[in-house]
Amino acid sequence: MPVKQSFMDAALEQARLAAARGEVPVGAVVVKDGAIIARSGNANRARHDVTAHAEILAIREASEHLASDRLSECDLYVTLEPCTMCAAAISFARIRRLYFGAEDEKGGGVVNGVRFFEQATCHHAPEIYAGIGESEAATLLRDFFRRKREGA
Amino acid sequence: MPVKQSFMDAALEQARLAAARGEVPVGAVVVKDGAIIARSGNANRARHDVTAHAEILAIREASEHLASDRLSECDLYVTLEPCTMCAAAISFARIRRLYFGAEDEKGGGVVNGVRFFEQATCHHAPEIYAGIGESEAATLLRDFFRRKREGA
Repeated sequence: MPVKQSFMDAALEQARLAAARGEVPVGAVVVKDGAIIARSGNANRARHDVTAHAEILAIREASEHLASDRLSECDLYVTLEPCTMCAAAISFARIRRLYFGAEDEKGGGVVNGVRFFEQATCHHAPEIYAGIGESEAATLLRDFFRRKREGA
Repeated sequence: MPVKQSFMDAALEQARLAAARGEVPVGAVVVKDGAIIARSGNANRARHDVTAHAEILAIREASEHLASDRLSECDLYVTLEPCTMCAAAISFARIRRLYFGAEDEKGGGVVNGVRFFEQATCHHAPEIYAGIGESEAATLLRDFFRRKREGA
């Protein structure tokens, strides 16, 4: 198994754990020197915090771990295309590479919406790799929202 | 003194306190029913956290205070035009009215840059009031960066 898939698998595991807690199933991990240094799932509901997206929590955890807000040698794996808020946070943190799973037409800010990394007010853009673990990430989200609609 | 100015004065006070801590001087307060329920200044440096902008911290504090992530009856006063990350967070939190001081051509995301609130991937936009306390907010920032350049 290529290493990149195993990191996305770890992000998918965080997404599944988020779903089990009743949160929108999105997960993220931060990788440095071939090792995961932070992992998180969405926690909006539990924390009453709209900013508690998986990416934000993972970036904050990685920064704490490294005692630095510059994550220049770090890569972020996230199961869903980051939203506008998270795309900007990824830029501020100087994340080196961004790997994401499913696209998010309604709320994404990377290859949809404001396409933040292509804008003049974006002062650092990561390398972007899309579609890794896409199918499983999308299935997790689809199942979650179907169960929600059915009131399960 | 009109009430709105006094709320912006409270945000400016948070910006001054941030400067005294060596942080970029931006401050924010959240107001509900005519009272300040959260106040914060930038804390990027102290927290090693790129997401610790004044607006994000104030929104998180207000959400904690109300035990809800929906701040539909809350107004946010911030000394500088919110960046792209903060604009999205303000939208997610359903902030009712946004009052800001100085514009930010390089990093703003409201009337500059991605103009997030005008985009299709923005699902809630606050009413926006710009230029309140603008001169003092801009002076604080200018003085801060001048002192930094001078190595003070």
